[in-house]
Amino acid sequence: LAVTWDHPSGIWDQFPNLDTVLSLGAGADHLITDGSIPPSVQLGRVVTPSLKQQMAEFVLMHVLWIQRKIEHFRTQESHSRWDPKAPWDKSKLPVGIMGLGELGSAVAYLLNQHDFEVHGWSRTIKEIPDVISHTGPHGRQSMVEQCRIFVCLLPLTNKTKGILNSRLFNAMPDNSWLIHVGRGEHLVEEDLLSALNSDKLADAYLDVFDPEPLPSEHLFWTHPNIHITPHIASLTPPDEAAEQIAQDYRNTLNKQALTHPVDRELGY
Amino acid sequence: LAVTWDHPSGIWDQFPNLDTVLSLGAGADHLITDGSIPPSVQLGRVVTPSLKQQMAEFVLMHVLWIQRKIEHFRTQESHSRWDPKAPWDKSKLPVGIMGLGELGSAVAYLLNQHDFEVHGWSRTIKEIPDVISHTGPHGRQSMVEQCRIFVCLLPLTNKTKGILNSRLFNAMPDNSWLIHVGRGEHLVEEDLLSALNSDKLADAYLDVFDPEPLPSEHLFWTHPNIHITPHIASLTPPDEAAEQIAQDYRNTLNKQALTHPVDRELGY
Repeated sequence: LAVTWDHPSGIWDQFPNLDTVLSLGAGADHLITDGSIPPSVQLGRVVTPSLKQQMAEFVLMHVLWIQRKIEHFRTQESHSRWDPKAPWDKSKLPVGIMGLGELGSAVAYLLNQHDFEVHGWSRTIKEIPDVISHTGPHGRQSMVEQCRIFVCLLPLTNKTKGILNSRLFNAMPDNSWLIHVGRGEHLVEEDLLSALNSDKLADAYLDVFDPEPLPSEHLFWTHPNIHITPHIASLTPPDEAAEQIAQDYRNTLNKQALTHPVDRELGY
Repeated sequence: LAVTWDHPSGIWDQFPNLDTVLSLGAGADHLITDGSIPPSVQLGRVVTPSLKQQMAEFVLMHVLWIQRKIEHFRTQESHSRWDPKAPWDKSKLPVGIMGLGELGSAVAYLLNQHDFEVHGWSRTIKEIPDVISHTGPHGRQSMVEQCRIFVCLLPLTNKTKGILNSRLFNAMPDNSWLIHVGRGEHLVEEDLLSALNSDKLADAYLDVFDPEPLPSEHLFWTHPNIHITPHIASLTPPDEAAEQIAQDYRNTLNKQALTHPVDRELGY
């Protein structure tokens, strides 16, 4: 069993007895894009309870930040201006989550608990209480037209690369918000800038980039409506990861299914 | 029955048949400081479910903001610097709530749900599950020494005016945080500046001031570790307020207790 993150290419023929490769994190894209892992090796990923909770709380914090208009108050503060505004009525701020996997579902559940209307878009229809589930291109269009805050938590696959593009942004209501906690490669950077500059998007909260670290000369750093965190939305805690890895080692020895198996066809 | 907020002084002898005065908000300090309301008139305040939820979510949002070190990332962003930091372990960030009334209890409950250790300080010991309750000057000292994030939600009375002072700040662990959502008069402004400049406090999130609006030339606006919102932490929604006022009107006619009576001796 190998546990990897950003492994060097071409290493797999050194390990002829390998049964399992685990990604040390919720994303498995780095395992899929390495086409040289022998087909007989099963793939898995490490998704711990704390990883889900961190992501859910990170997104909730930003959704509340938007609902309470704190970005406006920060701007006013920089001009020494007192300008109270009532919060958004939550019913006017439906949240659309792109990707309803382990992390997306945890985010949906917590937003629901705080009385936000939650929509989700995923490959298959999901039965999650109080979440309006959409699928396919029509479902995506329908969700995008109905929501105001968008959260990207899709897996990175050939089908989702570049999915945050002008076509998507242009379908959104004016002055929507993006919270991007997927992968940098989901986003077409110039399309984001167009969407912000044409007021399709009011603000974008970005935690992931391509490449990382985001180069210091990148335009995103200084854009007034782009807010950057350095890929910290959710970090795998070592103690919980160790527990799942030990379990998946036992599962491998006993020919049992992995805790979070990865499907090579689907890419996640 | 009169419903008031910031009423002119000396008006009460115009209303000889008055039975009840309600404060249109959770604070009743403006009724108490007006000594001219006849003693036969009962006092009450309007505290709606949404008022409690707004306050709880406002404080949770800021506690998460602190735990996830987002202020640090904002500073780094202004220098185009990528500098990831792991979040604070929640067990290292106990939250001390000063005031465990309607609003303080709602905040305590929500922070608990998000796995923060919660302490509370109030006039009497409160039995709230999973909240460590303190009272009296020794209790205050004990709570202040044990916590890292402090939330002020005390009523404004003669005993609590100026309670956020150097004596309190100096008892805190270094680099603590203050979230002030009580009343401007709780805070001794120069003591806050000393606490920030001597690193007793890392950051202060202030929603209330004396006077309001905070004058545009005030030092607080430009202090890098003071973050200002213009008294918006919790706003009474008109529809819910109308419902409680109608109920208290019926209570007054029927000689029943008010929904949220105010004790003149205690001052809240």
